[in-house]
Amino acid sequence: MGLKATLLLGSIMTLSVANPSLAADWQALPDQAPFPADNPPSEAKIELGKILFFDPRFSEHGTLSCNSCHNVMTGGDDNRPNSIGMHDARGGRSAPTVWNAAFYSVQFWDGRAATLEDQAKGPVANPIEMGMASLDEAMARVAKIPGYQPLFEAAFPGEPNPITGDNAVKAIAAFERTLITPNSPYDRYVKGDAAAMTEQQIRGMETFDALGCTSCHSGANFSGPTLPIGTGFFMKFPTYPGSAYDAKYKLTKDPGRYEVTKKAADRHLFRVPTLRNIALTAPYFNNGQVPTLDKAVQVMAKVQLNKDLTEAQTADLVAFLNALTGEFPELALPRLPGTPNMSVIPPVDPHLKVKAHR
Amino acid sequence: MGLKATLLLGSIMTLSVANPSLAADWQALPDQAPFPADNPPSEAKIELGKILFFDPRFSEHGTLSCNSCHNVMTGGDDNRPNSIGMHDARGGRSAPTVWNAAFYSVQFWDGRAATLEDQAKGPVANPIEMGMASLDEAMARVAKIPGYQPLFEAAFPGEPNPITGDNAVKAIAAFERTLITPNSPYDRYVKGDAAAMTEQQIRGMETFDALGCTSCHSGANFSGPTLPIGTGFFMKFPTYPGSAYDAKYKLTKDPGRYEVTKKAADRHLFRVPTLRNIALTAPYFNNGQVPTLDKAVQVMAKVQLNKDLTEAQTADLVAFLNALTGEFPELALPRLPGTPNMSVIPPVDPHLKVKAHR
Repeated sequence: MGLKATLLLGSIMTLSVANPSLAADWQALPDQAPFPADNPPSEAKIELGKILFFDPRFSEHGTLSCNSCHNVMTGGDDNRPNSIGMHDARGGRSAPTVWNAAFYSVQFWDGRAATLEDQAKGPVANPIEMGMASLDEAMARVAKIPGYQPLFEAAFPGEPNPITGDNAVKAIAAFERTLITPNSPYDRYVKGDAAAMTEQQIRGMETFDALGCTSCHSGANFSGPTLPIGTGFFMKFPTYPGSAYDAKYKLTKDPGRYEVTKKAADRHLFRVPTLRNIALTAPYFNNGQVPTLDKAVQVMAKVQLNKDLTEAQTADLVAFLNALTGEFPELALPRLPGTPNMSVIPPVDPHLKVKAHR
Repeated sequence: MGLKATLLLGSIMTLSVANPSLAADWQALPDQAPFPADNPPSEAKIELGKILFFDPRFSEHGTLSCNSCHNVMTGGDDNRPNSIGMHDARGGRSAPTVWNAAFYSVQFWDGRAATLEDQAKGPVANPIEMGMASLDEAMARVAKIPGYQPLFEAAFPGEPNPITGDNAVKAIAAFERTLITPNSPYDRYVKGDAAAMTEQQIRGMETFDALGCTSCHSGANFSGPTLPIGTGFFMKFPTYPGSAYDAKYKLTKDPGRYEVTKKAADRHLFRVPTLRNIALTAPYFNNGQVPTLDKAVQVMAKVQLNKDLTEAQTADLVAFLNALTGEFPELALPRLPGTPNMSVIPPVDPHLKVKAHR
């Protein structure tokens, strides 16, 4: 038995002694995310993906990048009920965090994309998001930016025409797979540092398990069991409809995965979201209608477990969820390659009114 | 005479020998920008200013930061004719670059702000930009974000209530004064590296001087002489109205500085903009109506100097202007302090239509 295994065993034992009642399989966040066989990471690919992730020029008006709604300077979303796309458009769902998204087995609230690569194709051509006519139109802009040519060549060596939509989303996905937030108080605790969480956080962890939250929010990412890519771990929300929350927070308006499959059994099914960094991603749920984490915890207990929480339970659970805020890697601000002497963003629709002068 | 002075003299001599016909006072960009006596820079202030610069939560919908329109990942603007603010609003003027803005003696196209501090107060409360009701409303959001408290305390030590609008804009201005792009081919050339510019760029430099461009675009920042803060170096645009360009590019629509002073003599006066990194900030002019740099150069020669350029002159001038693209300092991506368990961005106006589901 090597040193690592010994330490691991030591950790588990420490944990068992400290919390003998815990039944859940508590896992720390891995340092590396899985990746598809056809898209192994490389430094050049990750760097290209990062630049693309921050580049707003592939949105219709040149104003929105991936980072606009999945802001890696924060908890990886936009802290809004929904995001704002081209022409001031809003969708009905809240932007999920990009942090640790690499650990999901499907992407989007309704799981309509199997991989991060597939996911990245969506917003670019969504009329209420980045609003390009197609991924190809976006790539036509990329191709006009001279500095992208060497970046694509380095990321996809040997390909005669590397500037393709498929390669762009591969690079973005490769970058996103580096967006991992390890070493949260929870992670340090389950690795054996008994002082990493406060007493209240430990109580919250026990409550989280005892109530049954772990039946969905399990695994290292608190988003369900590790499943093959494309499988998806979905749950009905609300599982117990009929509470006052349904109307108050419009919980039954969105048919969820039904929109993808048109199967009645998929009505109101949603991918179980990660709880990592959940304290930083208010407002909450698929429609972003619940403004605070304490209210979100109470709603979940009621509509998923049919339980009414005490104030103390709520506070403990919120404290535990705050222990899931991890360490965010330091990133350098990317430099976006320029288009000397011109812009790739077309002048905007002439029908738009100029509302004031300055 | 110390080593530095000797080197400088050597540089000037080299330049004089290489280009005996040059009359202009060619200056390299200073490494440091001037600052007001009441706002000396400090590391803590610059760091706070940078975080505020990137934080979108002080816009009405939580979607726009300073960096949205003055993108330091690019040439410091948004490569658009005009910027897009809250509610899809557009203004009539093009966002000036933030790079080297510290070398201006006034801010905005019409010089309506004396300092970067004053400038930073504008967009936050402009209904067609960040759209807050007031700077105070923005600061009320800042005050709700716990992580800002220690940042303001470190930046403004000893102040009992450091979270104020005045301090916020001081910090932003202190950060902006670090946004300097030295060591362009032009800078290296005038410091004595005769190989730093191409032959065409040197021809373009001579043409730039001979045509009279330097009568306005002079000094280290190519934005006129160094003047006391608040003075402003303005010029009439177009100086020679009546060309076909007036209608084509709507050159006489904007009354310029007249809007600020209401003096007839200020009609169509604009601050002379820097030409540094001009190759990266298309489209051009106060209204962003001219899409390319070669066209911009031809328009300027015609409407400011009443001269028609040849294709060769145009190409040489564009080449020279590309030699003004400097080195951009490496910046770390800031981490925006979170608001655990809640969002400071209010849910958006209920009258807005949700246009689609996803």
